[in-house]
Amino acid sequence: MAFLESPSRPLVESLVREALFRQLGRAVTPAPVLVVNSSARHMHISPENVEVLFGKGAELTVHKMLYQEGQFASQQTVTLVGPRKRIIPNLRILGPCRNLTQIELAFTDAVQLGIDGPGRMSGDIEGTPGTYIMGPKGFLEMKNGVIRAARHVHMSPSDAEFYGVKHLDLITLKVSAKGCTTRFDDLLVRVDPAFKLEVHIDTDEANACDLDHAEKVELFKSQPST
Amino acid sequence: MAFLESPSRPLVESLVREALFRQLGRAVTPAPVLVVNSSARHMHISPENVEVLFGKGAELTVHKMLYQEGQFASQQTVTLVGPRKRIIPNLRILGPCRNLTQIELAFTDAVQLGIDGPGRMSGDIEGTPGTYIMGPKGFLEMKNGVIRAARHVHMSPSDAEFYGVKHLDLITLKVSAKGCTTRFDDLLVRVDPAFKLEVHIDTDEANACDLDHAEKVELFKSQPST
Repeated sequence: MAFLESPSRPLVESLVREALFRQLGRAVTPAPVLVVNSSARHMHISPENVEVLFGKGAELTVHKMLYQEGQFASQQTVTLVGPRKRIIPNLRILGPCRNLTQIELAFTDAVQLGIDGPGRMSGDIEGTPGTYIMGPKGFLEMKNGVIRAARHVHMSPSDAEFYGVKHLDLITLKVSAKGCTTRFDDLLVRVDPAFKLEVHIDTDEANACDLDHAEKVELFKSQPST
Repeated sequence: MAFLESPSRPLVESLVREALFRQLGRAVTPAPVLVVNSSARHMHISPENVEVLFGKGAELTVHKMLYQEGQFASQQTVTLVGPRKRIIPNLRILGPCRNLTQIELAFTDAVQLGIDGPGRMSGDIEGTPGTYIMGPKGFLEMKNGVIRAARHVHMSPSDAEFYGVKHLDLITLKVSAKGCTTRFDDLLVRVDPAFKLEVHIDTDEANACDLDHAEKVELFKSQPST
């Protein structure tokens, strides 16, 4: 499993050009390199909350750079305390800081913890459950912000043009693996000039399709009913 | 999540008749009722090993009947001890006894435990890893038998005829759920006159597609490339 904090184990795979060109009906251009990574559970955090958990003046420090430019797994980890007094220790914080604090769990994590984290796009935390966080220097009560991050793909405008999609469209990811090929529909497209082409699925999804041993990964614009 | 030991939470769903009839090109017959259940991690066991773990003369007793005729979650549970001294407590044994002892884990369980359980059809345990099992009356070293059960569907010969498949064919399960519709290819077809139509996926797969909140479940014979 390629955790966000582990060396990005990019499952690098050329797309089936011919099929796409037939679909897109245009001249042959090089297929972008598609990387699929699974995001282990993690936390995003505001600068104020870093100080609550790690002490006044504390800042996130880099443990490992991630595939998206400027993003990193920090050296800082916390303990998540669920409503049934169950805990998840060593929850890693991703940096840099954001203007909101948010926890992203796979469903398996949420079930274990006793929190029903709804599937949401990152940042869309209104009405979501909260939790308690223990850091080395303090305790934080999150009123909300526990979600399951919706499966999504980061891409640049030129990648979006290649696939014939636009920001917030849905696309299908097919992961071909021996005995457990899986197609994930409803993959949310997020377009930004700063983005590198990368799919993020969570650990449940990665385990369901055996991403570690995948032989091929592909994106398809269409979502036929079979 | 519908664990095997919880009341079978059948996700009961009529198939889209018209599509199938078009596909099968024959007269209208009623679609069979399709049930999709997730199997939480569990153990199958031989009578000899019941005695090793629970004492001489011990037998499995019924905790709850399962959807397939005669199958049950037993009252007996064990503790699984992995190679890194991590444990999974309260692993439920399913009955009745079989002629082999086998543990079925989701990948998430296997990762947590530190065992790399390969995807296998139930019963096909040659060359798979083993583990240690603690029962109330004894300790068992399994030389092999830890697997991830391949996603599969039980069906009767008449169901198989309806779907146009035969024993050991592969079929596709589509689970439609808000924001995370997923198509599981490579679903192994198991045909037996005693079987009721039921798909078994594991907890990773059920969590990946949010089976709990699924709006529709369907089986498709064909596996187009998109």
